[in-house]
Amino acid sequence: MNSNYKVLKFRSGNLENFDDQISIEEPLEIILKYKNKENWVENTISITMRTPGDDEDLVTGFLFNEKVIEKINYIENIKVSGEKVGQYKLRNKIIVTINNSENVDIDKIKRNFLTNSSCGVCGKTSLDTLEIIKKDKILKSIPKIHHKIIMKSPNMLRQNQSEFSKTGGIHASGLFNISGEVIAVKEDVGRHNALDKLIGYVLKNKLLDNSSQFLTCSGRLNFDLVQKALMANISVLIGVGAPTSLAIDLANKFDMTLVGFVKEDSFNIYSNKERIIIKI
Amino acid sequence: MNSNYKVLKFRSGNLENFDDQISIEEPLEIILKYKNKENWVENTISITMRTPGDDEDLVTGFLFNEKVIEKINYIENIKVSGEKVGQYKLRNKIIVTINNSENVDIDKIKRNFLTNSSCGVCGKTSLDTLEIIKKDKILKSIPKIHHKIIMKSPNMLRQNQSEFSKTGGIHASGLFNISGEVIAVKEDVGRHNALDKLIGYVLKNKLLDNSSQFLTCSGRLNFDLVQKALMANISVLIGVGAPTSLAIDLANKFDMTLVGFVKEDSFNIYSNKERIIIKI
Repeated sequence: MNSNYKVLKFRSGNLENFDDQISIEEPLEIILKYKNKENWVENTISITMRTPGDDEDLVTGFLFNEKVIEKINYIENIKVSGEKVGQYKLRNKIIVTINNSENVDIDKIKRNFLTNSSCGVCGKTSLDTLEIIKKDKILKSIPKIHHKIIMKSPNMLRQNQSEFSKTGGIHASGLFNISGEVIAVKEDVGRHNALDKLIGYVLKNKLLDNSSQFLTCSGRLNFDLVQKALMANISVLIGVGAPTSLAIDLANKFDMTLVGFVKEDSFNIYSNKERIIIKI
Repeated sequence: MNSNYKVLKFRSGNLENFDDQISIEEPLEIILKYKNKENWVENTISITMRTPGDDEDLVTGFLFNEKVIEKINYIENIKVSGEKVGQYKLRNKIIVTINNSENVDIDKIKRNFLTNSSCGVCGKTSLDTLEIIKKDKILKSIPKIHHKIIMKSPNMLRQNQSEFSKTGGIHASGLFNISGEVIAVKEDVGRHNALDKLIGYVLKNKLLDNSSQFLTCSGRLNFDLVQKALMANISVLIGVGAPTSLAIDLANKFDMTLVGFVKEDSFNIYSNKERIIIKI
């Protein structure tokens, strides 16, 4: 599932408007329904950010792969539920009814999954409070970045990665200033961890200056990365890969400049182009 | 942080042994210590799979970015803890002491983070029970796959992705048989979701036949993907990108064939080469 977004493409010294198709990212709340003694109970066991479509397959596979159920025929019924929400009018809840409470290890579920309902790394408290950013986080700082610095930043990131050249398999997040100097680069097999490491490091060492710095991340840009960057009040986020719909929506809402698909001679601007200086 | 692994590289019709540097992936249990009324309490708030190194920065950034603490000076102390475990003799626990319980919203933490301690998507119950796979899952099926089919599979995956060509930003998992026929391909912005969708779909439709099929995933190969594939008893997992250390260790332990860095004319074998037919 994808949607059209207006994008500015910088290529061969020109900025062009075009409509780009963006993969949709939306939360899905997985609710398990089972009989506990005489009563039917419903418990949220996970919230995952997913591309809508095949939701029943996703949840069936998730429950099996995470060993919540041993056999998929323990599922009596899967029903997409909830109000149609958001710009895509999607139902983002799914209720899975287990046909016999003996077929689920309630204690194990309580111990491992019931979170009422969030996990710090991948989920949020509820669909309504998905955005944990306060209103006062709306970005006011305006670093202006030359387009050449943007196109150089993926190389700057790689040159400062100690692990990538060795393993070819590690993500990185880097903070740079608008002159193209490196403030810090951190690496991890998880994109979100690399960014957490970077923010932790620059906060601890008082190196963060939102008025003159920007962030470049390897890989794709999703909700999680944008949210983490916004929490630190960083106003320009550059990614080597594609953004998701939610990444763009969040960037627009909080006045962040989001740039994706950065190559040596081109990039795409998804929001707030004012912070980018195009001078040929 | 990385480690040397023995790898078989297929290139120009030859198999060569070489030592490859692999990014380490290990779990980290984040424990928050704070005063509740008169008593000090310790609670696990997250388990994340990370590359060891900069653990204090990771946790500082995580707590700030996920809004567990508003200011990083609320952290009185961060201490890596626990026994030295595993082949890398790492301490995989970290205790964060908050200097004043008023500085953490205990109710919010209980509501959002305390999971005692797992989330289905990214974490596992505890470091000791990280592997949720039963012993009887050890793979016995032996599909034999020709090297040409392996090198073709990333293209087969792409050709069957409906979204990738449009957005350039979506992951996929595909199940194929050893003749190179497509069983199913599923897409999602999250790699783990694409695999959950695929497994859910093939289980529901009784399409899974481990003796003649293999799995190809876009992107890198981490613990999560290997574990999910093992749960479905799939014995060959092929990835376009690099594996992590834990992915290789798990594949070796459960007799899975793990292949990474697949290109049109080369690939790397990380475990159990017997399932791959090299005929020039």
